[in-house]
Amino acid sequence: MSDERAFIEALRRIAGTPAARGLADDCAVFDMGERALVLTHDMMVEGVHWLPGQAMHDVAWKLVAVNLSDLAAKGATPLGILVGHTLGEDDAGFLAGLEEASDTLGAPLWGGDTVSHHGGARTLGLTAIGQTEHRPVPSRGGAKPGDAVCITGPVGGAMIGFESLRDEGDTPDNRRVTQPYRRPTPLLSEGRALAPLASAIMDVSDGLLLDASRMAEASGVTLALDRAAIPIAAPEDRRDEALRWGDDYQLLFTVSPEVELPIPAHRIGVVHERGEHAVLLDGEPVSGAPGYEHRRAH
Amino acid sequence: MSDERAFIEALRRIAGTPAARGLADDCAVFDMGERALVLTHDMMVEGVHWLPGQAMHDVAWKLVAVNLSDLAAKGATPLGILVGHTLGEDDAGFLAGLEEASDTLGAPLWGGDTVSHHGGARTLGLTAIGQTEHRPVPSRGGAKPGDAVCITGPVGGAMIGFESLRDEGDTPDNRRVTQPYRRPTPLLSEGRALAPLASAIMDVSDGLLLDASRMAEASGVTLALDRAAIPIAAPEDRRDEALRWGDDYQLLFTVSPEVELPIPAHRIGVVHERGEHAVLLDGEPVSGAPGYEHRRAH
Repeated sequence: MSDERAFIEALRRIAGTPAARGLADDCAVFDMGERALVLTHDMMVEGVHWLPGQAMHDVAWKLVAVNLSDLAAKGATPLGILVGHTLGEDDAGFLAGLEEASDTLGAPLWGGDTVSHHGGARTLGLTAIGQTEHRPVPSRGGAKPGDAVCITGPVGGAMIGFESLRDEGDTPDNRRVTQPYRRPTPLLSEGRALAPLASAIMDVSDGLLLDASRMAEASGVTLALDRAAIPIAAPEDRRDEALRWGDDYQLLFTVSPEVELPIPAHRIGVVHERGEHAVLLDGEPVSGAPGYEHRRAH
Repeated sequence: MSDERAFIEALRRIAGTPAARGLADDCAVFDMGERALVLTHDMMVEGVHWLPGQAMHDVAWKLVAVNLSDLAAKGATPLGILVGHTLGEDDAGFLAGLEEASDTLGAPLWGGDTVSHHGGARTLGLTAIGQTEHRPVPSRGGAKPGDAVCITGPVGGAMIGFESLRDEGDTPDNRRVTQPYRRPTPLLSEGRALAPLASAIMDVSDGLLLDASRMAEASGVTLALDRAAIPIAAPEDRRDEALRWGDDYQLLFTVSPEVELPIPAHRIGVVHERGEHAVLLDGEPVSGAPGYEHRRAH
């Protein structure tokens, strides 16, 4: 059963407690009365989630950022982080990046564990703990027919950044281009502003079309997207790839069309009653693989 | 700086928030008013924390148990766990062990992440979240001169179990002998009973003498231990090794000598004003390495 999908399905059967949200959401949500705790744990593997030789300063930043992005999708405020580190090259860079991310993004380091490296790809993990007072805590599962489908910003920038980093290395000249891949920004304040208004929210980590299909499945609806309305940070001839690449960490959300949005966002579609397909792109089912499965958190 | 001790020292400078407890305790403790959250993240690496080829059922149990043991040392009750899993051999066994530990030890699965395996030693991580209403939440740092030093049970059983598993494999005949190594028990109810009474508590994960020295350093005292009074689950001629081996997960604690203990425990020494050495064994400093550093949580 060394197959991620089968493993997660089996795991889902174990995770029956309400806080687990059926392992179908970005985070666990534990209701404590006045406030809810919001928790997530994402791992990163060398060669999968970062390029071998990449500056560990950036890897540490990303490790923090991708976890906080999950909190952002709940409208949560970070309380603290626990880091699971495998020692190796550029540990000093890792520490500097961890400190910068912790300070800049407001997520104090609470603890964790450190292990030595025993060959193969290095594995890192991070647990982020946050809280929110807003109820209900938004999920992927609340999209309603008639709602507008929106996204906070463009996708595809991480794809372009990844390619530049892979092909040209990390140089002063391409630092701005590679930034979306190296150092994503978790949209914490945007998430807090949207949480009381949106019917469903998630962060786009694995590709817009794949993540949209997850929101559609969780909500029991179809998301009908307008291909041309989706903002991309890539050449127009790469639009189809930009919609499938991940790592941009925009927030995808649905909201009643009457709501005045508190933050800038792009309206990219509408929610329909559930049809045959989870996602439609200009009225047609999505062809080919909709995105990356490799970093599917559970 | 690929050295665990230097890395953790550097990490300590980042972790200035009170919840981190200076990375000198078993857990992070976040005060929420009525209750305190208690959090820990421990990793396990194949070939370091478990034997290659060992049944993953037991590895999953241990992954849960060692983290809950950290909660036990705070007198905390588990709320939930997040698991970081690297796919590989015997994933079905891992799931079964995870479910059994989660059910038996009362720690619901809240979520986590799953990544594919890319060579080398597999790495697993687990975050345990617990809570306690008792204040102050005990630490390693409260031992006072005159206190008795106590331990909940024998050490050395995991050493014997490890050797049997390594030399004879996992057979029906040695299952009882290997159990302390394969399937440690987190002493959650014992920790809850001790938390209001003990001046300092920690779990013994890396070797009694090493962990005692950590308690002594955190408390600014000397722990004077009576070698013969320390219960061991090993032949008498291996006493010195039993005091240095880890993985037994007993609770080591200090308590005012007038206190009537609510649970069975062994008095193994007394707390002195800080002298030249952190730990004395029959009045002498400890010779040689006091224990294992490899799984030092921070």
